[in-house]
Amino acid sequence: MNYAIRLAYDGTRYNGWQRQGNTDRTIQGKLEAVLTELAGGPVEVQGSGRTDRGVHAEGQTANFRLPADRDPGTVMEYLNRYLPEDIQVLSCARAPEAFHSRLSAVRKTYRYQIEMGPRRNVFQRNYYYGLGCGLDLERMRAGAVHLIGTHDFRSFCGNPRMKKSCVRTIEAIDFAGPKGAAAGCGLTGTQLFILYRGNGFLQQMVRILTGTLIEVGLGKREPESLEAVLRARDRQAAGFTAPAQGLFLVNVEYGEEYDGIFSEALCKEL
Amino acid sequence: MNYAIRLAYDGTRYNGWQRQGNTDRTIQGKLEAVLTELAGGPVEVQGSGRTDRGVHAEGQTANFRLPADRDPGTVMEYLNRYLPEDIQVLSCARAPEAFHSRLSAVRKTYRYQIEMGPRRNVFQRNYYYGLGCGLDLERMRAGAVHLIGTHDFRSFCGNPRMKKSCVRTIEAIDFAGPKGAAAGCGLTGTQLFILYRGNGFLQQMVRILTGTLIEVGLGKREPESLEAVLRARDRQAAGFTAPAQGLFLVNVEYGEEYDGIFSEALCKEL
Repeated sequence: MNYAIRLAYDGTRYNGWQRQGNTDRTIQGKLEAVLTELAGGPVEVQGSGRTDRGVHAEGQTANFRLPADRDPGTVMEYLNRYLPEDIQVLSCARAPEAFHSRLSAVRKTYRYQIEMGPRRNVFQRNYYYGLGCGLDLERMRAGAVHLIGTHDFRSFCGNPRMKKSCVRTIEAIDFAGPKGAAAGCGLTGTQLFILYRGNGFLQQMVRILTGTLIEVGLGKREPESLEAVLRARDRQAAGFTAPAQGLFLVNVEYGEEYDGIFSEALCKEL
Repeated sequence: MNYAIRLAYDGTRYNGWQRQGNTDRTIQGKLEAVLTELAGGPVEVQGSGRTDRGVHAEGQTANFRLPADRDPGTVMEYLNRYLPEDIQVLSCARAPEAFHSRLSAVRKTYRYQIEMGPRRNVFQRNYYYGLGCGLDLERMRAGAVHLIGTHDFRSFCGNPRMKKSCVRTIEAIDFAGPKGAAAGCGLTGTQLFILYRGNGFLQQMVRILTGTLIEVGLGKREPESLEAVLRARDRQAAGFTAPAQGLFLVNVEYGEEYDGIFSEALCKEL
Protein backbone atom coordinates (compact mmCIF):
# COMPACT_ATOMS: atom_id res chain seq x y z
CA MET A 1 0.00 0.00 0.00
CA ASN A 2 1.26 3.44 -1.02
CA TYR A 3 1.05 6.19 1.60
CA ALA A 4 1.42 9.95 1.09
CA ILE A 5 2.44 12.28 3.91
CA ARG A 6 2.85 15.99 4.37
CA LEU A 7 5.40 17.02 6.97
CA ALA A 8 7.06 20.01 8.61
CA TYR A 9 10.58 20.16 9.94
CA ASP A 10 13.01 22.57 11.47
CA GLY A 11 16.10 21.86 9.37
CA THR A 12 18.55 23.44 11.81
CA ARG A 13 19.88 20.21 13.31
CA TYR A 14 19.89 18.17 10.09
CA ASN A 15 22.22 17.50 7.18
CA GLY A 16 19.30 18.04 4.82
CA TRP A 17 16.63 15.73 3.49
CA GLN A 18 18.67 13.05 1.76
CA ARG A 19 19.73 9.94 3.64
CA GLN A 20 23.51 9.56 3.97
CA GLY A 21 25.75 6.58 4.50
CA ASN A 22 26.64 6.33 8.14
CA THR A 23 24.76 9.20 9.68
CA ASP A 24 21.10 9.42 10.42
CA ARG A 25 21.08 13.19 10.83
CA THR A 26 18.82 13.53 7.78
CA ILE A 27 15.05 13.90 7.54
CA GLN A 28 14.72 10.96 5.15
CA GLY A 29 16.89 8.83 7.43
CA LYS A 30 14.78 9.62 10.51
CA LEU A 31 11.53 8.83 8.68
CA GLU A 32 12.87 5.56 7.28
CA ALA A 33 14.20 4.44 10.66
CA VAL A 34 10.79 4.88 12.32
CA LEU A 35 8.85 3.33 9.41
CA THR A 36 11.21 0.36 9.31
CA GLU A 37 10.37 -0.29 12.96
CA LEU A 38 6.65 -0.01 12.19
CA ALA A 39 6.78 -2.29 9.15
CA GLY A 40 9.23 -4.81 10.57
CA GLY A 41 11.37 -4.49 7.42
CA PRO A 42 13.09 -1.84 5.31
CA VAL A 43 10.92 1.04 4.07
CA GLU A 44 12.14 3.59 1.54
CA VAL A 45 10.73 7.11 1.68
CA GLN A 46 10.53 9.25 -1.49
CA GLY A 47 10.49 13.00 -0.92
CA SER A 48 9.09 15.62 -3.32
CA GLY A 49 12.65 16.90 -3.50
CA ARG A 50 15.76 17.24 -1.40
CA THR A 51 16.17 20.15 0.92
CA ASP A 52 19.70 21.29 1.77
CA ARG A 53 21.29 21.20 5.20
CA GLY A 54 19.63 23.85 7.37
CA VAL A 55 16.62 24.40 5.06
CA HIS A 56 13.19 24.16 6.70
CA ALA A 57 9.86 22.78 5.52
CA GLU A 58 6.32 23.78 6.44
CA GLY A 59 4.78 21.45 3.85
CA GLN A 60 7.19 18.91 2.40
CA THR A 61 5.54 15.82 0.89
CA ALA A 62 6.73 12.24 0.63
CA ASN A 63 5.43 8.76 -0.10
CA PHE A 64 6.36 5.22 0.95
CA ARG A 65 5.02 1.71 0.73
CA LEU A 66 4.08 -0.48 3.67
CA PRO A 67 3.69 -4.26 3.25
CA ALA A 68 0.36 -4.40 5.11
CA ASP A 69 -2.68 -2.13 4.81
CA ARG A 70 -2.72 0.09 7.89
CA ASP A 71 -4.97 2.89 9.03
CA PRO A 72 -3.29 6.18 7.91
CA GLY A 73 -4.21 7.87 11.18
CA THR A 74 -2.40 5.14 13.08
CA VAL A 75 0.66 5.44 10.83
CA MET A 76 0.75 9.21 11.41
CA GLU A 77 0.38 8.78 15.17
CA TYR A 78 3.18 6.22 15.22
CA LEU A 79 5.48 8.50 13.24
CA ASN A 80 4.81 11.51 15.45
CA ARG A 81 5.35 9.45 18.58
CA TYR A 82 8.82 8.26 17.53
CA LEU A 83 10.14 11.08 15.33
CA PRO A 84 12.28 13.80 16.96
CA GLU A 85 10.32 16.86 18.08
CA ASP A 86 11.66 18.97 15.19
CA ILE A 87 10.05 16.73 12.56
CA GLN A 88 6.27 16.45 12.45
CA VAL A 89 3.90 14.62 10.14
CA LEU A 90 0.94 16.89 9.34
CA SER A 91 -1.16 14.42 7.37
CA CYS A 92 -1.09 10.84 6.13
CA ALA A 93 -3.35 9.24 3.52
CA ARG A 94 -3.53 6.14 1.33
CA ALA A 95 -2.40 7.09 -2.19
CA PRO A 96 -2.99 5.51 -5.60
CA GLU A 97 -0.21 3.14 -6.66
CA ALA A 98 0.89 5.60 -9.38
CA PHE A 99 1.42 8.45 -6.92
CA HIS A 100 5.04 9.57 -6.55
CA SER A 101 5.73 12.60 -4.37
CA ARG A 102 8.41 13.96 -6.73
CA LEU A 103 7.30 12.81 -10.19
CA SER A 104 3.62 13.63 -9.62
CA ALA A 105 4.25 17.13 -8.21
CA VAL A 106 3.04 19.99 -10.41
CA ARG A 107 3.84 23.06 -8.34
CA LYS A 108 6.06 24.07 -5.41
CA THR A 109 6.15 27.16 -3.24
CA TYR A 110 9.19 28.37 -1.30
CA ARG A 111 9.63 31.35 1.01
CA TYR A 112 12.95 33.04 1.68
CA GLN A 113 13.19 35.17 4.85
CA ILE A 114 15.59 38.12 5.12
CA GLU A 115 16.26 40.33 8.13
CA MET A 116 17.32 43.78 6.91
CA GLY A 117 17.67 45.31 10.37
CA PRO A 118 21.16 46.27 11.56
CA ARG A 119 21.44 43.72 14.34
CA ARG A 120 21.13 40.00 14.58
CA ASN A 121 18.30 38.68 16.73
CA VAL A 122 18.84 35.60 18.86
CA PHE A 123 15.36 34.30 18.04
CA GLN A 124 15.81 34.63 14.28
CA ARG A 125 19.26 33.15 13.91
CA ASN A 126 18.07 29.82 12.50
CA TYR A 127 15.19 31.18 10.39
CA TYR A 128 16.39 34.35 8.69
CA TYR A 129 19.28 35.46 6.58
CA GLY A 130 20.70 38.36 8.59
CA LEU A 131 21.56 40.72 5.76
CA GLY A 132 21.78 43.71 8.11
CA CYS A 133 20.93 46.45 5.63
CA GLY A 134 18.04 47.72 3.54
CA LEU A 135 17.08 46.59 0.03
CA ASP A 136 15.50 48.53 -2.82
CA LEU A 137 12.29 46.56 -3.35
CA GLU A 138 11.38 48.34 -6.57
CA ARG A 139 14.65 47.27 -8.18
CA MET A 140 14.13 43.70 -6.97
CA ARG A 141 10.59 43.62 -8.37
CA ALA A 142 11.88 44.92 -11.70
CA GLY A 143 14.57 42.25 -11.73
CA ALA A 144 12.17 39.44 -10.81
CA VAL A 145 10.03 40.19 -13.87
CA HIS A 146 12.81 38.81 -16.07
CA LEU A 147 12.89 35.53 -14.15
CA ILE A 148 9.18 34.77 -14.38
CA GLY A 149 8.15 32.40 -17.15
CA THR A 150 9.74 29.34 -18.77
CA HIS A 151 13.52 29.61 -19.03
CA ASP A 152 16.67 27.55 -18.97
CA PHE A 153 17.83 28.23 -15.40
CA ARG A 154 21.30 26.66 -15.71
CA SER A 155 22.87 29.91 -14.45
CA PHE A 156 20.90 29.38 -11.22
CA CYS A 157 21.79 25.72 -10.72
CA GLY A 158 24.15 24.84 -7.88
CA ASN A 159 25.14 21.49 -9.38
CA PRO A 160 27.96 22.00 -11.92
CA ARG A 161 27.57 18.41 -13.16
CA MET A 162 23.84 18.75 -13.91
CA LYS A 163 23.25 16.59 -17.02
CA LYS A 164 19.50 16.97 -17.36
CA SER A 165 17.39 19.83 -18.66
CA CYS A 166 17.46 23.01 -16.59
CA VAL A 167 14.27 24.34 -18.13
CA ARG A 168 11.75 25.27 -15.47
CA THR A 169 8.74 27.56 -15.20
CA ILE A 170 8.49 30.17 -12.47
CA GLU A 171 4.89 31.30 -12.13
CA ALA A 172 5.39 34.02 -9.56
CA ILE A 173 7.94 35.81 -7.39
CA ASP A 174 6.20 37.86 -4.72
CA PHE A 175 7.67 40.21 -2.14
CA ALA A 176 5.99 40.58 1.22
CA GLY A 177 6.97 43.10 3.82
CA PRO A 178 8.57 44.75 5.56
CA LYS A 179 5.75 43.73 7.84
CA GLY A 180 4.49 45.75 10.78
CA ALA A 181 5.75 44.75 14.18
CA ALA A 182 4.09 41.65 15.62
CA ALA A 183 4.81 40.75 19.21
CA GLY A 184 6.04 37.34 20.12
CA CYS A 185 7.85 36.26 17.02
CA GLY A 186 10.58 38.82 16.71
CA LEU A 187 9.06 40.73 13.79
CA THR A 188 10.36 44.26 13.88
CA GLY A 189 9.28 45.77 10.59
CA THR A 190 12.58 45.02 8.88
CA GLN A 191 11.78 41.55 7.52
CA LEU A 192 11.47 40.80 3.85
CA PHE A 193 9.86 37.59 2.58
CA ILE A 194 10.33 36.46 -1.02
CA LEU A 195 7.85 33.86 -2.25
CA TYR A 196 8.68 31.68 -5.25
CA ARG A 197 6.07 29.53 -7.03
CA GLY A 198 6.96 27.29 -9.93
CA ASN A 199 6.71 23.82 -11.45
CA GLY A 200 10.08 22.76 -10.08
CA PHE A 201 13.39 24.13 -8.83
CA LEU A 202 16.97 23.02 -9.48
CA GLN A 203 19.52 22.34 -6.76
CA GLN A 204 20.05 25.54 -4.71
CA MET A 205 18.03 27.45 -7.34
CA VAL A 206 15.88 29.41 -4.88
CA ARG A 207 18.95 30.39 -2.86
CA ILE A 208 20.84 31.55 -5.98
CA LEU A 209 17.79 33.43 -7.29
CA THR A 210 17.58 35.11 -3.88
CA GLY A 211 21.28 35.98 -3.76
CA THR A 212 21.06 37.48 -7.24
CA LEU A 213 17.93 39.50 -6.41
CA ILE A 214 19.63 40.75 -3.23
CA GLU A 215 22.53 42.01 -5.36
CA VAL A 216 19.97 43.85 -7.51
CA GLY A 217 18.35 45.27 -4.38
CA LEU A 218 21.74 46.48 -3.13
CA GLY A 219 22.44 48.28 -6.41
CA LYS A 220 25.30 45.93 -7.34
CA ARG A 221 23.45 44.68 -10.45
CA GLU A 222 20.91 46.23 -12.78
CA PRO A 223 17.43 44.65 -12.87
CA GLU A 224 17.68 44.36 -16.68
CA SER A 225 20.93 42.42 -16.40
CA LEU A 226 19.02 39.31 -15.27
CA GLU A 227 18.04 38.59 -18.86
CA ALA A 228 21.72 38.26 -19.78
CA VAL A 229 22.32 36.14 -16.67
CA LEU A 230 19.68 33.67 -17.86
CA ARG A 231 21.13 33.63 -21.40
CA ALA A 232 24.65 32.93 -20.11
CA ARG A 233 23.64 29.44 -18.87
CA ASP A 234 26.64 29.73 -16.53
CA ARG A 235 26.55 29.65 -12.74
CA GLN A 236 29.29 32.34 -12.66
CA ALA A 237 26.91 34.83 -14.27
CA ALA A 238 24.45 34.75 -11.36
CA GLY A 239 24.83 36.06 -7.81
CA PHE A 240 25.81 34.44 -4.54
CA THR A 241 23.99 31.53 -2.91
CA ALA A 242 21.88 32.97 -0.09
CA PRO A 243 22.33 30.98 3.15
CA ALA A 244 20.19 27.93 3.85
CA GLN A 245 18.58 28.96 7.12
CA GLY A 246 16.36 31.61 5.48
CA LEU A 247 14.66 29.08 3.20
CA PHE A 248 11.32 27.33 3.81
CA LEU A 249 9.64 24.78 1.52
CA VAL A 250 6.06 25.97 2.02
CA ASN A 251 3.92 23.71 -0.11
CA VAL A 252 3.92 21.06 -2.83
CA GLU A 253 0.89 20.73 -5.11
CA TYR A 254 -0.40 17.84 -7.23
CA GLY A 255 -2.82 17.47 -10.15
CA GLU A 256 -6.55 16.92 -9.83
CA GLU A 257 -6.16 13.15 -9.99
CA TYR A 258 -4.58 13.28 -6.53
CA ASP A 259 -6.94 15.85 -5.06
CA GLY A 260 -8.17 13.53 -2.37
CA ILE A 261 -4.77 12.88 -0.84
CA PHE A 262 -3.69 16.26 0.39
CA SER A 263 -6.71 18.56 0.13
CA GLU A 264 -8.57 16.37 2.58
CA ALA A 265 -5.58 16.40 4.88
CA LEU A 266 -5.30 20.17 4.58
CA CYS A 267 -8.94 20.57 5.58
CA LYS A 268 -8.34 18.52 8.67
CA GLU A 269 -5.49 20.81 9.55
CA LEU A 270 -7.31 24.13 9.15
CA MET B 1 33.87 51.59 36.41
CA ASN B 2 30.29 50.30 36.56
CA TYR B 3 28.74 49.15 33.26
CA ALA B 4 25.06 48.45 32.54
CA ILE B 5 23.98 46.18 29.71
CA ARG B 6 20.70 45.07 28.16
CA LEU B 7 20.72 41.66 26.58
CA ALA B 8 18.59 39.10 24.76
CA TYR B 9 18.96 35.36 24.91
CA ASP B 10 17.30 32.22 23.69
CA GLY B 11 17.18 30.22 26.92
CA THR B 12 16.65 26.85 25.22
CA ARG B 13 20.20 25.56 25.59
CA TYR B 14 20.88 27.00 29.07
CA ASN B 15 20.38 25.99 32.67
CA GLY B 16 18.98 29.44 33.39
CA TRP B 17 20.63 32.72 34.32
CA GLN B 18 22.46 31.84 37.51
CA ARG B 19 26.06 30.62 37.39
CA GLN B 20 26.53 27.07 38.69
CA GLY B 21 29.49 25.29 40.15
CA ASN B 22 31.12 23.20 37.48
CA THR B 23 29.05 23.96 34.42
CA ASP B 24 29.11 27.06 32.32
CA ARG B 25 25.78 26.37 30.64
CA THR B 26 24.30 29.48 32.25
CA ILE B 27 23.86 32.99 30.88
CA GLN B 28 25.68 34.58 33.82
CA GLY B 29 28.52 32.08 33.46
CA LYS B 30 28.93 32.82 29.74
CA LEU B 31 28.98 36.58 30.33
CA GLU B 32 31.48 36.32 33.17
CA ALA B 33 33.79 34.06 31.17
CA VAL B 34 34.00 36.56 28.31
CA LEU B 35 34.34 39.60 30.59
CA THR B 36 37.06 37.89 32.62
CA GLU B 37 39.02 37.46 29.38
CA LEU B 38 38.47 41.12 28.54
CA ALA B 39 39.44 42.42 31.98
CA GLY B 40 42.30 40.01 32.57
CA GLY B 41 40.85 39.10 35.96
CA PRO B 42 37.59 37.88 37.52
CA VAL B 43 34.44 39.91 36.75
CA GLU B 44 31.13 39.32 38.49
CA VAL B 45 27.91 40.05 36.59
CA GLN B 46 24.74 41.06 38.50
CA GLY B 47 21.48 40.34 36.68
CA SER B 48 18.16 42.10 37.28
CA GLY B 49 16.89 38.69 38.33
CA ARG B 50 17.37 35.01 37.63
CA THR B 51 15.56 33.39 34.77
CA ASP B 52 14.83 29.66 35.00
CA ARG B 53 16.21 26.99 32.73
CA GLY B 54 14.58 27.37 29.29
CA VAL B 55 13.19 30.89 29.92
CA HIS B 56 14.04 33.51 27.29
CA ALA B 57 14.86 37.21 27.49
CA GLU B 58 14.27 40.01 25.01
CA GLY B 59 15.46 42.68 27.44
CA GLN B 60 17.26 41.35 30.50
CA THR B 61 19.55 43.86 32.23
CA ALA B 62 22.77 43.37 34.16
CA ASN B 63 25.72 45.34 35.51
CA PHE B 64 29.38 44.63 36.20
CA ARG B 65 32.56 46.45 37.12
CA LEU B 66 35.69 46.61 34.99
CA PRO B 67 39.02 47.66 36.52
CA ALA B 68 39.84 50.10 33.70
CA ASP B 69 37.64 52.67 32.00
CA ARG B 70 36.76 51.29 28.57
CA ASP B 71 34.59 52.55 25.77
CA PRO B 72 31.12 50.94 26.22
CA GLY B 73 30.79 50.37 22.47
CA THR B 74 34.05 48.43 22.49
CA VAL B 75 32.91 46.36 25.49
CA MET B 76 29.64 45.53 23.71
CA GLU B 77 31.47 44.59 20.52
CA TYR B 78 33.87 42.36 22.44
CA LEU B 79 30.99 40.61 24.22
CA ASN B 80 29.05 40.01 21.02
CA ARG B 81 32.13 38.68 19.26
CA TYR B 82 32.85 36.03 21.92
CA LEU B 83 29.41 35.19 23.32
CA PRO B 84 27.50 32.24 21.80
CA GLU B 85 25.10 33.22 19.03
CA ASP B 86 22.05 32.69 21.25
CA ILE B 87 23.12 35.43 23.68
CA GLN B 88 23.33 39.00 22.42
CA VAL B 89 24.15 42.27 24.12
CA LEU B 90 21.75 44.97 22.87
CA SER B 91 23.29 47.96 24.61
CA CYS B 92 26.13 48.86 26.95
CA ALA B 93 26.64 52.10 28.87
CA ARG B 94 28.68 53.52 31.76
CA ALA B 95 26.47 53.57 34.86
CA PRO B 96 26.64 55.56 38.11
CA GLU B 97 28.43 53.71 40.91
CA ALA B 98 25.14 53.29 42.79
CA PHE B 99 23.42 51.52 39.91
CA HIS B 100 22.52 47.87 40.60
CA SER B 101 20.55 46.02 37.95
CA ARG B 102 18.40 44.19 40.52
CA LEU B 103 18.14 46.60 43.45
CA SER B 104 17.59 49.68 41.27
CA ALA B 105 14.90 48.09 39.07
CA VAL B 106 11.40 49.55 39.50
CA ARG B 107 9.36 47.62 36.94
CA LYS B 108 9.53 44.39 34.95
CA THR B 109 7.50 43.09 32.05
CA TYR B 110 7.11 39.42 31.13
CA ARG B 111 5.24 37.75 28.27
CA TYR B 112 3.92 34.21 28.37
CA GLN B 113 3.15 32.56 25.01
CA ILE B 114 0.53 29.82 24.67
CA GLU B 115 -0.39 27.82 21.58
CA MET B 116 -4.03 26.76 21.81
CA GLY B 117 -4.16 24.99 18.45
CA PRO B 118 -4.57 21.21 18.42
CA ARG B 119 -1.16 20.36 17.01
CA ARG B 120 2.36 21.09 17.99
CA ASN B 121 4.39 23.15 15.53
CA VAL B 122 8.04 22.33 14.99
CA PHE B 123 8.95 26.04 14.84
CA GLN B 124 7.21 26.89 18.13
CA ARG B 125 8.45 24.05 20.29
CA ASN B 126 11.00 26.14 22.21
CA TYR B 127 8.95 29.35 22.44
CA TYR B 128 5.37 28.37 23.24
CA TYR B 129 3.54 26.26 25.75
CA GLY B 130 1.63 23.82 23.56
CA LEU B 131 -1.63 23.68 25.49
CA GLY B 132 -3.51 22.22 22.53
CA CYS B 133 -6.99 23.48 23.37
CA GLY B 134 -8.95 26.71 23.60
CA LEU B 135 -9.24 28.99 26.64
CA ASP B 136 -12.13 31.17 27.80
CA LEU B 137 -10.50 34.61 27.71
CA GLU B 138 -13.38 36.33 29.49
CA ARG B 139 -12.99 34.06 32.50
CA MET B 140 -9.22 34.62 32.51
CA ARG B 141 -9.68 38.40 32.39
CA ALA B 142 -12.14 38.19 35.27
CA GLY B 143 -9.67 36.12 37.26
CA ALA B 144 -6.74 38.42 36.54
CA VAL B 145 -8.58 41.37 38.06
CA HIS B 146 -8.13 39.78 41.50
CA LEU B 147 -4.37 39.51 41.03
CA ILE B 148 -3.77 43.12 40.08
CA GLY B 149 -2.61 45.40 42.89
CA THR B 150 -0.39 44.95 45.93
CA HIS B 151 -0.73 41.52 47.51
CA ASP B 152 1.20 38.89 49.39
CA PHE B 153 1.91 36.45 46.54
CA ARG B 154 3.27 33.59 48.69
CA SER B 155 0.73 31.22 47.07
CA PHE B 156 2.43 31.97 43.75
CA CYS B 157 6.01 31.51 44.95
CA GLY B 158 7.90 28.44 43.72
CA ASN B 159 10.44 28.56 46.56
CA PRO B 160 9.00 26.78 49.64
CA ARG B 161 11.85 28.10 51.81
CA MET B 162 11.25 31.75 50.91
CA LYS B 163 12.05 33.73 54.07
CA LYS B 164 11.57 37.28 52.81
CA SER B 165 8.44 39.26 52.10
CA CYS B 166 6.29 37.99 49.25
CA VAL B 167 4.46 41.29 48.87
CA ARG B 168 4.61 42.53 45.29
CA THR B 169 2.59 44.88 43.12
CA ILE B 170 1.21 43.75 39.78
CA GLU B 171 0.29 46.80 37.71
CA ALA B 172 -1.25 45.03 34.76
CA ILE B 173 -2.08 41.65 33.26
CA ASP B 174 -2.98 42.00 29.59
CA PHE B 175 -4.17 39.39 27.14
CA ALA B 176 -3.24 39.67 23.49
CA GLY B 177 -4.60 37.48 20.76
CA PRO B 178 -5.49 35.16 19.33
CA LYS B 179 -3.69 37.11 16.63
CA GLY B 180 -4.44 36.96 12.94
CA ALA B 181 -2.22 34.75 10.86
CA ALA B 182 1.19 36.23 10.07
CA ALA B 183 3.40 34.45 7.59
CA GLY B 184 6.93 33.54 8.52
CA CYS B 185 6.70 33.10 12.23
CA GLY B 186 4.23 30.28 12.57
CA LEU B 187 1.34 32.41 13.83
CA THR B 188 -1.89 30.66 13.03
CA GLY B 189 -4.54 32.61 14.92
CA THR B 190 -4.46 30.28 17.89
CA GLN B 191 -1.75 31.98 19.95
CA LEU B 192 -2.44 33.68 23.24
CA PHE B 193 0.04 36.09 24.84
CA ILE B 194 -0.29 37.09 28.49
CA LEU B 195 1.66 40.19 29.51
CA TYR B 196 2.56 40.81 33.15
CA ARG B 197 3.87 44.13 34.41
CA GLY B 198 4.84 44.69 38.03
CA ASN B 199 7.47 45.97 40.44
CA GLY B 200 8.98 42.52 40.94
CA PHE B 201 8.19 38.84 40.67
CA LEU B 202 8.97 35.92 42.97
CA GLN B 203 10.63 32.71 41.87
CA GLN B 204 8.45 31.03 39.21
CA MET B 205 5.69 33.53 40.00
CA VAL B 206 4.80 34.36 36.38
CA ARG B 207 4.65 30.67 35.50
CA ILE B 208 2.41 29.86 38.49
CA LEU B 209 0.16 32.86 37.78
CA THR B 210 -0.10 31.60 34.19
CA GLY B 211 -0.84 28.01 35.21
CA THR B 212 -3.56 29.23 37.57
CA LEU B 213 -5.11 31.53 34.94
CA ILE B 214 -5.06 28.65 32.45
CA GLU B 215 -7.04 26.54 34.95
CA VAL B 216 -9.55 29.40 35.15
CA GLY B 217 -9.68 29.57 31.35
CA LEU B 218 -10.33 25.83 31.16
CA GLY B 219 -13.24 26.08 33.62
CA LYS B 220 -11.43 24.11 36.33
CA ARG B 221 -11.44 27.09 38.72
CA GLU B 222 -13.76 30.05 39.20
CA PRO B 223 -12.33 33.52 38.50
CA GLU B 224 -13.49 34.68 41.94
CA SER B 225 -11.60 31.85 43.64
CA LEU B 226 -8.30 33.67 43.05
CA GLU B 227 -9.00 35.96 45.98
CA ALA B 228 -9.03 32.95 48.28
CA VAL B 229 -5.88 31.60 46.59
CA LEU B 230 -4.05 34.82 47.47
CA ARG B 231 -5.35 34.75 51.05
CA ALA B 232 -4.22 31.14 51.54
CA ARG B 233 -0.52 32.14 51.31
CA ASP B 234 0.09 28.50 50.35
CA ARG B 235 1.61 27.24 47.10
CA GLN B 236 -0.83 24.31 47.14
CA ALA B 237 -3.75 26.70 46.74
CA ALA B 238 -2.59 27.95 43.34
CA GLY B 239 -2.46 26.16 39.99
CA PHE B 240 0.30 24.33 38.14
CA THR B 241 3.59 25.86 37.06
CA ALA B 242 3.33 26.60 33.34
CA PRO B 243 6.38 25.33 31.43
CA ALA B 244 9.47 27.51 31.09
CA GLN B 245 9.76 27.67 27.30
CA GLY B 246 6.69 29.93 26.93
CA LEU B 247 8.15 32.68 29.12
CA PHE B 248 10.01 35.80 27.94
CA LEU B 249 11.49 38.54 30.14
CA VAL B 250 10.58 41.49 27.93
CA ASN B 251 11.86 44.57 29.71
CA VAL B 252 13.29 45.92 32.98
CA GLU B 253 12.73 49.57 33.87
CA TYR B 254 14.59 51.94 36.19
CA GLY B 255 13.84 55.23 37.88
CA GLU B 256 14.47 58.66 36.37
CA GLU B 257 17.89 58.92 37.96
CA TYR B 258 19.08 56.21 35.58
CA ASP B 259 17.26 57.50 32.51
CA GLY B 260 20.43 58.00 30.55
CA ILE B 261 21.62 54.42 30.79
CA PHE B 262 18.97 52.50 28.94
CA SER B 263 16.79 55.08 27.19
CA GLU B 264 19.76 56.22 25.17
CA ALA B 265 20.57 52.65 24.34
CA LEU B 266 16.97 52.00 23.35
CA CYS B 267 17.07 54.95 20.97
CA LYS B 268 20.13 53.56 19.31
CA GLU B 269 18.32 50.29 18.80
CA LEU B 270 15.10 51.69 17.30
